[in-house]
Amino acid sequence: MGGPDRIIGAPMRWNSCPRHLRDGLVWTLLLISLGSGCARSPAPDEVAWAIAIHGGAGTIPRDLDPESRRRYEDSLREALTLGRDLLESGGRSLDAVERVIVYLEDDPLFNAGRGAVFNAAGGNELDASLMDGASMAAGAVAGVTSVKNPITLARLVMTETPHVLLAGAGAEELAREHGLESVGPDYFWTQRRWDELQRRRAAEQGGTVGAVALDRAGNLAAGTSTGGLTAKRFGRIGDSPIVGAGTYADNATCAVSGTGKGEEFIRHNVAARISMLVGVGGLELEPAAQRVIGERLDPGDGGVIAVDRDGRLALVFNTEGMYRGAADSSGRFEVAIWD
Amino acid sequence: MGGPDRIIGAPMRWNSCPRHLRDGLVWTLLLISLGSGCARSPAPDEVAWAIAIHGGAGTIPRDLDPESRRRYEDSLREALTLGRDLLESGGRSLDAVERVIVYLEDDPLFNAGRGAVFNAAGGNELDASLMDGASMAAGAVAGVTSVKNPITLARLVMTETPHVLLAGAGAEELAREHGLESVGPDYFWTQRRWDELQRRRAAEQGGTVGAVALDRAGNLAAGTSTGGLTAKRFGRIGDSPIVGAGTYADNATCAVSGTGKGEEFIRHNVAARISMLVGVGGLELEPAAQRVIGERLDPGDGGVIAVDRDGRLALVFNTEGMYRGAADSSGRFEVAIWD
Repeated sequence: MGGPDRIIGAPMRWNSCPRHLRDGLVWTLLLISLGSGCARSPAPDEVAWAIAIHGGAGTIPRDLDPESRRRYEDSLREALTLGRDLLESGGRSLDAVERVIVYLEDDPLFNAGRGAVFNAAGGNELDASLMDGASMAAGAVAGVTSVKNPITLARLVMTETPHVLLAGAGAEELAREHGLESVGPDYFWTQRRWDELQRRRAAEQGGTVGAVALDRAGNLAAGTSTGGLTAKRFGRIGDSPIVGAGTYADNATCAVSGTGKGEEFIRHNVAARISMLVGVGGLELEPAAQRVIGERLDPGDGGVIAVDRDGRLALVFNTEGMYRGAADSSGRFEVAIWD
Repeated sequence: MGGPDRIIGAPMRWNSCPRHLRDGLVWTLLLISLGSGCARSPAPDEVAWAIAIHGGAGTIPRDLDPESRRRYEDSLREALTLGRDLLESGGRSLDAVERVIVYLEDDPLFNAGRGAVFNAAGGNELDASLMDGASMAAGAVAGVTSVKNPITLARLVMTETPHVLLAGAGAEELAREHGLESVGPDYFWTQRRWDELQRRRAAEQGGTVGAVALDRAGNLAAGTSTGGLTAKRFGRIGDSPIVGAGTYADNATCAVSGTGKGEEFIRHNVAARISMLVGVGGLELEPAAQRVIGERLDPGDGGVIAVDRDGRLALVFNTEGMYRGAADSSGRFEVAIWD
């Protein structure tokens, strides 16, 4: 198990160890090598591909009216179907992640793309990132204001520039160079997000969107896209475009996309920390995600979706709910909002 | 040893293990507990505080003329003295890190503050970040163009806003609100950086600056400041303002500041990865830094400075040289450029 960083207690100052401890350590290492085969749960049977998606975590009222609930679930189901079909037919995890996120960006229900919240200045600044676990290549954009699908621009940063993160006007320029669809400020004007700004309160139903996927070739990918925080300070960049914080993918470990209080995700390096707990710590994916969300973050801070290289999925949050969906090649296909 | 994330191979699916392996694992864990005492090198004697600084890593010609060499060494010595005096008299690690970086930002020798390189558009965009290991609070700015000392603005983001990272005009606005010294574009105009832009070649002598420190109270801090890459794309953000990539501090593990190819530092999450190898992997600081720089990065990519909670210092790079300095309360005080 684990990537190249895996460590199993190798001592650093060998010669300063008493002999009986040195011998003990030799046995220790030997037994760990023997034992590690059972430290891993069996992989799901015949999982050739897997995908998880999210549409944000937060205080989603449990008495959400049936019509709203249906709309969210329908949208998640549709996005998940797009991803499933692409992966089922042998498509790349990176393409599945982008395709699903484009769909969610286009749906005004979610705080990404069209449904982006307003910043304190009454504008919209969008952030997105994408990472390819096979090459660990990554692309991200921050503070874009006129790009219809920031996740696609993030992919261009990855493939068409030597950089990982482009912000503001520099990112818009790249979008123009590649003929990406641009939109005016009115595209992002939705009554609901405007009302939220007037009340200076956080978007409560539907936030950041993201997807993680494993494809038939064994490659992992993760992506995240957001409009950020309602009434955020102009220029504020959250965790979504920060590789390591809101998004991470490494074929040796797992792919992760997060949603929640971005500043906490940055400080605690949430996405990469889960990857390191799997790779260095030797934890399973689910306990690794539980540990970071449960111990590093405060209750109510957010959640993550993650998939490991064997197709195990983890959808973990410490908020009242998280819009989410999961599917894999075994036939699993489900969307959910609360526990 | 290690922070709350430390894991020593606890098995996840106990009941599915054959009995002899289970017994083996019990011994394994027991022996690791006994053995871990000698997996740690002794702390330096009576180190009450420690500091390391860098002025960038890269291809520094070994036949650098004596006058240039003297100027770099003098500047590093002066910066290190400022940090040493502050820590010796009981000052905070966070103050020492900021103070040292302000000094290096003001010196046109380094690619930060005054000596910032030009982007492809002929302008200067500065990035900086700062992190407090005690609280894991962090602040960062990206793409600022008119702030004399970006590291001080990064600190304001940390203390005066709920955010971690502010970019561009939004960051400049915060600087104005707090009366930070602003400068015109001519402040950043230096012949040497202009010549570098004309030749579209990377700054070869003197790059990003950074500092890490442990204070008498046992608190760690890290900070980094840069002008980025010569001829970088407008809007490009590198690793320096990315908490987890170029800067990280956690009292439970260590404080790290990096310099080099920012995109690689972001992808491999360099600063936080070193912290995780110490905290989760149980490695000593020096091997942890060696491992990340040696195995995750390619030769020539860059280097890091780091200090752990016992005052051990690590200054590791895979480039021809790194402008650097180290001091601690035992009387150690040294600056160096090459191996």
